[in-house]
Formats: sequence, structure tokens, C-alpha cells
Amino acid sequence: MFKTFKEDGKARLGELTLKRGVVKTPIFMPVGTVGSVKTLVPSDLKDLQAEIILGNTYHLYLRPGMDIIKHFGGLHKFINWDRPILTDSGGFQIFSLGKLRKIKEEGASFQSHIDGRKIFLSPELAVEIQETLDADIHMVLDECTPYPATHGEAKVSMQRSMRWAKRCREAKAKSDLAQFGIVQGGMYEDLRLDSIKALTDIDFEGYSIGGLSVGEPKPSMRTTTEFCCEHLPKDKPRYLMGVGTPLDIIESIGMGVDMFDCVMPTRNGRNGTLFTSEGKINIKNQKYAFDDSPLDPNCSCYTCQNFSRSYLRHLFVSKELTAQRLLTLHNLTYYLKLIHDIRDAIEQGTFQDLLRHHRGLWKA
Amino acid sequence: MFKTFKEDGKARLGELTLKRGVVKTPIFMPVGTVGSVKTLVPSDLKDLQAEIILGNTYHLYLRPGMDIIKHFGGLHKFINWDRPILTDSGGFQIFSLGKLRKIKEEGASFQSHIDGRKIFLSPELAVEIQETLDADIHMVLDECTPYPATHGEAKVSMQRSMRWAKRCREAKAKSDLAQFGIVQGGMYEDLRLDSIKALTDIDFEGYSIGGLSVGEPKPSMRTTTEFCCEHLPKDKPRYLMGVGTPLDIIESIGMGVDMFDCVMPTRNGRNGTLFTSEGKINIKNQKYAFDDSPLDPNCSCYTCQNFSRSYLRHLFVSKELTAQRLLTLHNLTYYLKLIHDIRDAIEQGTFQDLLRHHRGLWKA
Repeated sequence: MFKTFKEDGKARLGELTLKRGVVKTPIFMPVGTVGSVKTLVPSDLKDLQAEIILGNTYHLYLRPGMDIIKHFGGLHKFINWDRPILTDSGGFQIFSLGKLRKIKEEGASFQSHIDGRKIFLSPELAVEIQETLDADIHMVLDECTPYPATHGEAKVSMQRSMRWAKRCREAKAKSDLAQFGIVQGGMYEDLRLDSIKALTDIDFEGYSIGGLSVGEPKPSMRTTTEFCCEHLPKDKPRYLMGVGTPLDIIESIGMGVDMFDCVMPTRNGRNGTLFTSEGKINIKNQKYAFDDSPLDPNCSCYTCQNFSRSYLRHLFVSKELTAQRLLTLHNLTYYLKLIHDIRDAIEQGTFQDLLRHHRGLWKA
Repeated sequence: MFKTFKEDGKARLGELTLKRGVVKTPIFMPVGTVGSVKTLVPSDLKDLQAEIILGNTYHLYLRPGMDIIKHFGGLHKFINWDRPILTDSGGFQIFSLGKLRKIKEEGASFQSHIDGRKIFLSPELAVEIQETLDADIHMVLDECTPYPATHGEAKVSMQRSMRWAKRCREAKAKSDLAQFGIVQGGMYEDLRLDSIKALTDIDFEGYSIGGLSVGEPKPSMRTTTEFCCEHLPKDKPRYLMGVGTPLDIIESIGMGVDMFDCVMPTRNGRNGTLFTSEGKINIKNQKYAFDDSPLDPNCSCYTCQNFSRSYLRHLFVSKELTAQRLLTLHNLTYYLKLIHDIRDAIEQGTFQDLLRHHRGLWKA
């Protein structure tokens, strides 16, 4: 199901065979939280060469709800996307609800952010929902340990997540769908190691590194990612959830991570922050008012091929929806092209050069 | 510059030759107020077979401003649209500002809706701005007479608009751009006739019927449109500004109108109201929650070819930007296909059948 066929340092090329096709790794997965990658349509995503997208269990469970999903025979037909989909379990969103949620051994109680009604999500229900969605990859329900957390707190939380992981595995009914475990344990290496041991004993189709990008300093994120990669099995895909900047992605691939998702390209695009081969741009900046060059001279996206920074700035400050679409398209193009460049570099054994280049570009 | 080559009753087929190409009439012009048709991009508009789009003088003058437009050598290069553009003069927007504007013989003073700064727009400046935009068709500055207005008020207002029209014609410097006069006079036939006389004495490349869709009853709009069409020259295009529903458009074409613009398909699309071959749909309606049929079974747009009402409803109630894009695309497709159907009907001498069909459809 997963095979790697080339390494350059710890960076690696692989192929993940899923129900709806083969996904090459490293991969970046655009986020389509409630069933669309905001502002875009499936034909855009195919033009972008997106191979797999993300859906969100928590959001889709609340709306449109599983009755509608069942009526359509799964998420793919509902949203008209025939390539693989990964769904997260809802754990992170429940964590984000703060005081609206309550965690017990049995599962998580929370109030819907839409209408306030009470919802109870157990590990078993999380699996059932994701199998109803028919997601090619689905995630176990976990508790995302907050940062900071004491060793004791992180341990209690991680251990419960591991019991939940076991229940999720036992609840799994569809053999054609992949299920990933999620490593927790806060910033504590002994706990991360215990978590990896527990998950690999259960044996999943892949492993996620969870509980990062929750407010910890960047060096802690890097150290924890590197530690997990070193101890996770080599023959399974490693997925760093919710990360990150272009440099985060390259650094993590250099540690052996295979899969990424993040709202950064889409959300930043809608907010006017663009990633380019020359660094970051805030399109609102007055200095672009007369700038007739494209966002990125090295980008082949529709936005860069057709429009100036001046025009994009004008649309953005005028709050035109077309701006959010064009800027989202550019940022996702940047991320997916970056992934292709990284694959090429690993193929050619020049990954370290690429890493050095990006360290210079993004730290400048 | 304008020739008609087929009539069916008073409905007629024509061709309007402009700086950037030939536009067939009857025509519907999508509205791109500040330089984009909201949520869409030029390649969408070409897929839709849009032949000409609208820009708004008032909005573009305030933002991005003429310095930027000059830097790009006109609106076309700025927004990357190589087909014809029509700009309105800003008269209607100034009218819409209500108490923020003051009309004098010299021109209109108003406060910017963006930053409150004072602006003075004279007929001469309106022409200068539109020639800077290099709009293939531009409109004279007029005062849109409010509804209701007494005969005396409508007369004073119309007569000033006619003096402004003359000043606009005298200020016209670019011979490769067309300029249209605007008929005013409220709901009073004698004033409309005086206005037509004044404008045709000046001699424009085309004539607009202005001051409608401002709150008057639908029968008044129809009567005034019909009256103006009867008295406007046959050898010049007739443009009914800011109108309207599909039925308004068909009825008006039946009276001899050639050109239309309206925010209705785009704005209604963003608000979830769709025009279809089976009538109007409000996509928010609960009854579409499980509806796996397309918005319109007779529509070939990307939205109808790819998505169900259920999915579109889900995206819309979830406030996903993709919904506004997909719904805008459908509504514009509906309007432009309607125009093509009308042209075919005139060609085949079956316009009355089409009119009858739509009267039944939209009045039901």
C-alpha cells in the first residue's frame, strides 16, 4: 500500500495506493473543510494537479449531515471529486472549541458552533462517520494535547488518545479505506515514544504527528517532528497535520515527513498574503499600486499569467470576491509546485540545495 | 457602425461595430462595476460567450483612480479583457448617493462612499474619465430623475441632462469610441419626446433609455420603454439601462430594445436566487436538501453539469465562497443563453412564441 523508492538524506519519494488512486509523496493536500476548497472548483484543483484533498469530519457531520451524505453514497459524489480524500477525525476542531467541549473516557461532548445543539462524538462514531463519508484515508479520534501542558497532563491525555485509537481500529469496518493513527504526547519525547509504540502495536496504514502547530515555539515543533520521524516505521507514510509554511514543509520533508495539509495557502490567499519564489508579498501594500508585474514572475498559474499586482491589489482593497479566488489559486499553485520541486530534488539528489535555498529565502 | 438585418415584429437583430470588435444585438452585458464581474475571471466570461461587459465610471474614478488606469493605458489592459467594454457615466451612482450629492448646472458634487472626500463631476470630466478608461462605448453624464417626480421637476431635470449631453458631445475627443445619449423625462411622454428630440439633434452613436427601474410600477416602465423605442431612430442602437428580469428583457426586445445590462443575474446569484428554464429557484430552500438534480436540467454551465442542488444548497448555507461563484456562473449562463435563444427566435420569426412561453413561465 505504501512504498518508498528513493531517498535523499531522510527525505524520501513514495507512492501511497488508495481506494481511488495512487498518491505520490511527499504530498500537500489542499483543505476543503466543508466540501469545497474555498473559492475554487474541482476543475481548478485538477488544473493545479491536486492529487488528494481534505475534508473535515466535524464540519461535515454537523452540516450537511450524514443523511445527505448517505443519500449521495459518500462525500466524493456529493462534492463531485473523484480523486482521493482524507478526512480528519474532528479531534482538532473539538479541541479548538475550548470551553464548549468536555472530554470523557467514552468520547467528547461539545456544542455545535452552528446551532448550539449538544453532540457526542465517540471514537466509534468518528470511524462510522468517516466510513460513511467513504474517505480514502481517515483518522482516529484523538485528543489534541494543549500547549503548554505538564508531563502529567500530556501523559493522561496521550494515554486516553491511545485507548481511543485502539477503539477506532476495532470499529473499522471497511477494508478498502486506510486508517491513520495519530501520535500525541506534547513536547515530551518519552511520551511521544510511548505513543508511537502503542500505535504501531495496533498497526495502522499510516501515522500522523499530531499536537503540533498549537502555539509551541518553532524549535519545539521541529524537534518533536524529527524525533517522531526517527521512531516511526519506515514502511508507512508519515503525516504532519496542519503544517505549515513553505519552509516548515521543506524542513519536515528533510526529516522524513511524507504528507501535509494546511489552511495557510488558502486562508492567507483570502487575506492577501501571497507566497512567491521571491518571498512573501502582502498585496494590500501601497507599493504595488502601480506595479504591472505578476505576483510571481516564475509562476505559471492563471493569476500570474494574466494579471498585475496593481490589478490584484485593486480587486483586493475593493473587496472583490474575484481577488480571493485569484489569490487562493496562486497560493495553492505555489504550494503544489513547491512539492513537485521537492520531489524532483529528491529524485536528483539535490534536496539539500533546495533546503538551503529556502532557508535563505524565508529567513531573510 | 450599427446595422440591423432582420426584424420580427419590433424585435430586431443587429450588429454594432466597436473599437474592439463587433457586438451582435440584442445583447446582455454582464456588470463588472469596479473591474471584475464579481467571483468570475475573464476566461469564465469568454466561456460564457460574453461579448461586452460593463465598467462603472464613478467607482473606477474613485478606485483605482485615473493615474493607475493611465499607467496601464486604459481599463482593458488593467483588467485583461480584450473585448468591448461599456462604461456608464456615473450619473446613476451619484443619484443613488441620495443626500451625499448636490446637483448644479456645472455638474454634480458628491462625497466618496469610500473615504468621504469631496468630488466634483462635470459632464466634461465624465467624458475625460471614460476616454481615459478607453471604453468602447461611453455614456453622457445625466441626472437620473427620481420617481415619483412632478412634471415640473422632471422637466427641469431632463432639460439640464440635455444641456449636459450637449457638453459631453462637445467634450468628446476620441473618434474611435462610441458615445451614447441618455433619454430622460420621467414617466411623462411629452418630456421623453423632447429629450429624444434634443439628443437626436446632437446625434449620438446610440441612445439609452434612462431613469427606469427606479421604483416606478412595472407597467410604467413598459409603457415608457415602448414609447421611447417608437420615437428613437431606427438606425441606432437602443439601450435600456439597468434592466432587468428575464421577462423584462424579452418584453423590451419585443418593443425594439437592443442592449441591456443589469446586476440581477450576478447579485441574485450571490444571494442564492437562480433563474432556470423552469422558473426561479431559491437555493436556500429546505426542499432542495436531498435534491440530486442540477439547478436547471436544460443548462450546460459548469455548475449544472457538475453539481446537485443539494450540494449547492449546502455550500450556500455554509457561506462557502465557491457557492457564490458557481451560482453567479449559472445565472449569467442563463441570461446569455436567453439572449441567444431570442436571437434565434428573431432569425426564425418565432419571437412571439418565445415571448408567450416566457410570459407563462415568469408570471406563473
